[in-house]
Amino acid sequence: MFAFVAVAAKVTSQSVSTYVNPAVPTGEPVPGDYTGPLRPQIHFSPPQNFMNDPNGMFLDANGTWHLYYQYNPTGIVGGNQHWGHATSTDFYHWVNQPIALFPPEETVYVFSGSAVVDVNNTSGFFPDQDNGVVAIFTLAHGYYGPQTQNIAYSHDGGYTFEYYDGNPVIASNSSQFRDPKVIRYDDYCVAVIAYSQEFVVGIYNSPDLKNWTLASNFARHGLLGAQYECPNLVKMPVRDSNGSMVDSKYVLAISIQPGAPLGGSITEYFPGDFNGTHFTPLGSATRLTDFAKDNYAAQFFHGIPDAQNATVPTGILEGWRSVTTLPRDNYLKNATRIGLVMANELCDLSPVLDASLNQSTIGNGSVTVDYSTVDSGALYIDANVTGINTTLVTPDSTLNLSFTSPASGETLQSGFFFGGDNPFFINRGLIRGFDNVFFTDKFSTANIYSDGSGSLASWRMQAVIDRSILEVFVNGGDQAGTVLFYPTQPLSLLHLATRDLPTGAKVSVSVLALKSAWAEYENEQGTVVGNATRTTNSTGRQDMIYETEFLV
Amino acid sequence: MFAFVAVAAKVTSQSVSTYVNPAVPTGEPVPGDYTGPLRPQIHFSPPQNFMNDPNGMFLDANGTWHLYYQYNPTGIVGGNQHWGHATSTDFYHWVNQPIALFPPEETVYVFSGSAVVDVNNTSGFFPDQDNGVVAIFTLAHGYYGPQTQNIAYSHDGGYTFEYYDGNPVIASNSSQFRDPKVIRYDDYCVAVIAYSQEFVVGIYNSPDLKNWTLASNFARHGLLGAQYECPNLVKMPVRDSNGSMVDSKYVLAISIQPGAPLGGSITEYFPGDFNGTHFTPLGSATRLTDFAKDNYAAQFFHGIPDAQNATVPTGILEGWRSVTTLPRDNYLKNATRIGLVMANELCDLSPVLDASLNQSTIGNGSVTVDYSTVDSGALYIDANVTGINTTLVTPDSTLNLSFTSPASGETLQSGFFFGGDNPFFINRGLIRGFDNVFFTDKFSTANIYSDGSGSLASWRMQAVIDRSILEVFVNGGDQAGTVLFYPTQPLSLLHLATRDLPTGAKVSVSVLALKSAWAEYENEQGTVVGNATRTTNSTGRQDMIYETEFLV
Repeated sequence: MFAFVAVAAKVTSQSVSTYVNPAVPTGEPVPGDYTGPLRPQIHFSPPQNFMNDPNGMFLDANGTWHLYYQYNPTGIVGGNQHWGHATSTDFYHWVNQPIALFPPEETVYVFSGSAVVDVNNTSGFFPDQDNGVVAIFTLAHGYYGPQTQNIAYSHDGGYTFEYYDGNPVIASNSSQFRDPKVIRYDDYCVAVIAYSQEFVVGIYNSPDLKNWTLASNFARHGLLGAQYECPNLVKMPVRDSNGSMVDSKYVLAISIQPGAPLGGSITEYFPGDFNGTHFTPLGSATRLTDFAKDNYAAQFFHGIPDAQNATVPTGILEGWRSVTTLPRDNYLKNATRIGLVMANELCDLSPVLDASLNQSTIGNGSVTVDYSTVDSGALYIDANVTGINTTLVTPDSTLNLSFTSPASGETLQSGFFFGGDNPFFINRGLIRGFDNVFFTDKFSTANIYSDGSGSLASWRMQAVIDRSILEVFVNGGDQAGTVLFYPTQPLSLLHLATRDLPTGAKVSVSVLALKSAWAEYENEQGTVVGNATRTTNSTGRQDMIYETEFLV
Repeated sequence: MFAFVAVAAKVTSQSVSTYVNPAVPTGEPVPGDYTGPLRPQIHFSPPQNFMNDPNGMFLDANGTWHLYYQYNPTGIVGGNQHWGHATSTDFYHWVNQPIALFPPEETVYVFSGSAVVDVNNTSGFFPDQDNGVVAIFTLAHGYYGPQTQNIAYSHDGGYTFEYYDGNPVIASNSSQFRDPKVIRYDDYCVAVIAYSQEFVVGIYNSPDLKNWTLASNFARHGLLGAQYECPNLVKMPVRDSNGSMVDSKYVLAISIQPGAPLGGSITEYFPGDFNGTHFTPLGSATRLTDFAKDNYAAQFFHGIPDAQNATVPTGILEGWRSVTTLPRDNYLKNATRIGLVMANELCDLSPVLDASLNQSTIGNGSVTVDYSTVDSGALYIDANVTGINTTLVTPDSTLNLSFTSPASGETLQSGFFFGGDNPFFINRGLIRGFDNVFFTDKFSTANIYSDGSGSLASWRMQAVIDRSILEVFVNGGDQAGTVLFYPTQPLSLLHLATRDLPTGAKVSVSVLALKSAWAEYENEQGTVVGNATRTTNSTGRQDMIYETEFLV
């Protein structure tokens, strides 16, 4: 951690009023029913209504992670945006908190942004405390009005915020200027903000979070889509093949939506160097964070992207929409031929691991697990394939993992083609609970960096299935795929089968049930009420911190 | 046209032998059955067996277009590659010619490349003629052996070739070095060649097509996928909104396969400047030629990309695989916010236009056409939407075009969402004749550059459906989408419907039958025999020529 030098800043005690829609609760969390058959059990989803981008995540001194999120508390589509709030000490068990940020006026919306802990009172808001939190975010003045950058400060560790009376801190006449992400660099702050329709990321500097100067523009890189959103600039470790940190680089990630290849949204990223004012990518390649398309608006503090905010059926069926991915450990590694790529490693699942349902070692063969008795409907699967003689694979050398509903026949598929051009795929086309002309059914990637040595390749597939979301991690995170799926009946039969593997190949399969992280919070009516007392215990997850989010 | 100065070059008269598989016909074309229910009637597809990339297109002095293509004459999957050959005077009626290029040895394969007309005998192969043709292509020495660049010359206008005895003209030890595309620059030749696995396009110079010097490398730009293939460097006009040429730029197009976003293959392009040795892209954006994913290995002489060489069912069902797209008029235009983009304009269809089936003007309404009596099964649809008040559109303001089989219920859909984030889509997910985990069902684009003036937008959709291929062109070619589809029963009912258009909106709909370009070549047994006499008439299509392919 680096020193952060406080620069002159006034302390404000004026309060700025906010607008509270009569339908929106204050001072208490929105209650949620997490029992629906499509409701993820180890993922975060909002208690009710509509969530989109995650915002302003930080870890407080007590070891509590704070997740904010774009939230419409009054409807199941976007609009009337607030910052919802939830906390966790393990990334799986989330406590819903009262809404953290309300709009200043009825027709102004609180859009995306970030939050920092101002330990040394750089902002001047916190003369008597070291746990002040400053949120930096966009206020959208109606649909066509200007989008400006604003700050609010919290004296209670991020639970409630007051607007700064000097807002906006970055004025604008543009209706497309949003999503500030703040990091620290040396003794000042850096914000990256999207001029969305111009395909520009503005890089701003500030000594105090209040006064900002445009330092440079990063313009028109990679896929443009229809607009840029949610830029993230983050310092990321470069790890070698043993997992040791050997260097660090900056990564600039940009979400584009709509207009991604084949349609929809996607997040692209550029590894590079950052000197405090200018970001210089390493080369001109365009890389994508996910080979499927339901992973959007990634926030790299600790990679918790939002999974697609389309018109998915959970809104009508269960009264909520959108889910974050599981936390991911992101770092850079050198991929053969490709150069530096960002790994998406699945974090420790131990807080939600339950009984082992199957541990097998097979060659050519199969494993079947009826998991209809697993209350959560959530599983973790780890398949390690070793000893594949690459000169003997055929186009039929495959590993197929499927999840089926015996009641409806619906099946979700994923797996490897070891010998073909398309090594890894996901197919949700045989799931029938949602029909929409933009809901693409099949995804695949060939960009897998085999860790096989010599001619004996090894491959790994990890998968977490959680009622309506599947996340797969290939070779420990070289590639990740995130898909939402909406079966008409719960999937409850796992089948993993290999075929035509060369002699000597071995597949170690492990299937574990996952415990619902929400069920334990349910009251007698099945409702998750949310925060009664604030969580303050530390769980030592600071090993997962990378230092860019703190003003220490 | 520019002058091309011949440089000293020896004339060779030595002949180099070739290998002819006993199953491959020489001196006569491969016969084809073009009557199958999945066989396109106005598109080029090979008479039998497997085609992939188009190669070496040129226009001869008689007005005949020569199309070569990667061809396996002995199987319905890739392997045993030759150069197939067909000619046309209108881009729709193709005459199958004898195979043009055979491999030099049984285990060597003739991979992709290009061809040029050596009017001034630059190469020295043609002391007594001005219609000599030189093909420049990759020879692959087995699957793991080196790939080298080679030339062959034709004294009969491109129908038969002899290998140059000084091959290879560019040696290599790499097994991944291929697909030379040659253009002329000033008084010398330029080749772009892919170092596929290194994601590098080598730019070579030559005075005579025989002696080549590496001038520069264009490395790791845009999406990398698993490898680069089929680079194309072409000078392209920049047209203004009136269609007038106001400038010209070079375009470097690169096909990536596999490893495209969401899987499979895709073609990306970079507009830029070229000084004869170095290509400099205009900025760092990555652009794609097609918003769907079945358009690969585009060859810009006159844009005839190949449509997907997956394991599609036509191989088993009808004994042929792959189809080229229709010819497209490619040029650059300035798109609002985006910058220079390559338009894909549908060329004049008059050679195959048949009876008008419907001419209507509707507001909110629909048009239904039963085209079961159209023998070709092929249609051209043009829908012009004008007067859309953009402030009154809703998420339900749509135009839907569908093609249905009343027998099976299968439906192919495409259309506009005028008010949403995803203005244009294609959905082949309701077609059931082909099941494959890589055959993605839905595609959409939001990157449409409306030509609406003020608040009254106008949109245009053109579509050509041809039994198992659909090509759509949005707003005259701002965006193009190409999809293959394989119904179990022929589609024969067109339905075009609009919904929730604002008052004042008008949709002019035109539906025309297309005449089979192949039926007239069928003999009494229904077989297309191919070239009996060589086509020599000129049809004046030189208005469509852009000058980069000729050594004049």
